[in-house]
Amino acid sequence: MLEKAKDWAVEAGKMSLELSKGSLDITYKTSPSDLVTKVDKEVERFLVKEILHHYPNHGIVGEEGTFEKKPDDFDTIWIIDPIDGTTNFVHQQLNYVISIALVHQGEGIFGVIYDPSRQEMFWGYRGEGAYLDDKRLQISRLDRLEEALLCTGLFWNRKIEKTKLLETIYQLPKQCRGIRVYGCAALELAYIAAGRLDAYVSLGLNPWDFAAGLIIVEEAGGVVTTWKGDPLSFNQAGSLIAANPGLHHQLLPFLQK
Amino acid sequence: MLEKAKDWAVEAGKMSLELSKGSLDITYKTSPSDLVTKVDKEVERFLVKEILHHYPNHGIVGEEGTFEKKPDDFDTIWIIDPIDGTTNFVHQQLNYVISIALVHQGEGIFGVIYDPSRQEMFWGYRGEGAYLDDKRLQISRLDRLEEALLCTGLFWNRKIEKTKLLETIYQLPKQCRGIRVYGCAALELAYIAAGRLDAYVSLGLNPWDFAAGLIIVEEAGGVVTTWKGDPLSFNQAGSLIAANPGLHHQLLPFLQK
Repeated sequence: MLEKAKDWAVEAGKMSLELSKGSLDITYKTSPSDLVTKVDKEVERFLVKEILHHYPNHGIVGEEGTFEKKPDDFDTIWIIDPIDGTTNFVHQQLNYVISIALVHQGEGIFGVIYDPSRQEMFWGYRGEGAYLDDKRLQISRLDRLEEALLCTGLFWNRKIEKTKLLETIYQLPKQCRGIRVYGCAALELAYIAAGRLDAYVSLGLNPWDFAAGLIIVEEAGGVVTTWKGDPLSFNQAGSLIAANPGLHHQLLPFLQK
Repeated sequence: MLEKAKDWAVEAGKMSLELSKGSLDITYKTSPSDLVTKVDKEVERFLVKEILHHYPNHGIVGEEGTFEKKPDDFDTIWIIDPIDGTTNFVHQQLNYVISIALVHQGEGIFGVIYDPSRQEMFWGYRGEGAYLDDKRLQISRLDRLEEALLCTGLFWNRKIEKTKLLETIYQLPKQCRGIRVYGCAALELAYIAAGRLDAYVSLGLNPWDFAAGLIIVEEAGGVVTTWKGDPLSFNQAGSLIAANPGLHHQLLPFLQK
């Protein structure tokens, strides 16, 4: 199943690059910041078709809602984001990924995150490690927050003022070496696993944003929890901190303030 | 001279990738956020040696200060950043560039920005256009700020609280589609020229950060000024707004508030 998922991700990546040459049919979901294109929809239809062809008894949770049955009714579900980072896809044709995770009875089995523009395949299999292509991944070993490169989209979260976390968030950059914002949660989690970023902090990610990344980060030696320190559930949205155990331990109380 | 600059940039890129396999000898300049490595220094020495070998009567302004004479004494100066995005280089070996500009009697002649990890060569020659490799670049045509992808490092600028601009800056994300932070000014300006980002805003860039990028952005059809709307000078640090004319026109009054 893992090998099939990788093949589909590569195929979906090729589709996205090919389709990006034509009209994207961009539409807004809730605002000018919340885009969907026909590429998101076509790639999701492709993935759903492949999954159901090979595994007709599995359920699917996808960002675009192509699969219409209730995922709770299935033991084994695929959690997919056909294009994570749609805005990047539209503006850059860079910094977007295809994300695929397999979850069995609520437990993450494997995750695949494919970056078509760099042709980088990040993947992790529960208990067998995380990899970039064939190279084993190891999360950053940095243990001082002031030397850490922290990734977050918090500064442009429109809901942030309602959360009363404004002050905490604006203090965050002073705690670390630098902030990066790539605008693609799955890619950012893959970079955490690869040690290219040291810590990732987000409010309100959906399962299709984090499912594959969570498995890959954990398999690379990282810790992933909500801001309360609880495990994330694959069937609901949640806040997220991902880092090596030492940095996670430093970030958690800071964010809980 | 342009062709030589491109060759040197590619050579410097290879050096950086090769040297990144060994110890980087990282040292702090002013804080844990302000890094320099032996790679910055070695690449600058290489560029200075090549420039002076071919053009012994030219001056050089480089981030690492290898060239010790006063640049004001020269008609023609090269403004170089051997590794722009040193933090990215250290953490990722991605999202850093070599930046080279030629300035004659205060006027920018050409700029070269080379991304070794993607092997992308951005360049512009005054009056002859801007290019990515051989492909002509055209700045983004978006004219609505709410659809724009804005790039800035302002949120983690430690000096920001002293500038009284805090409120303006925190309002910025609400004006546009999204914020990106790559942590490499020259790369970010190259992406502006390529239409991958729609607007770039920074406080306090040095000439080696912006010289090549400014020329490339202008040649791609963009406007680059300080926050006051004045032209930047190649011999001093300054604030910077870069965008197409329409977005620049919308951003300027917002930032002047």
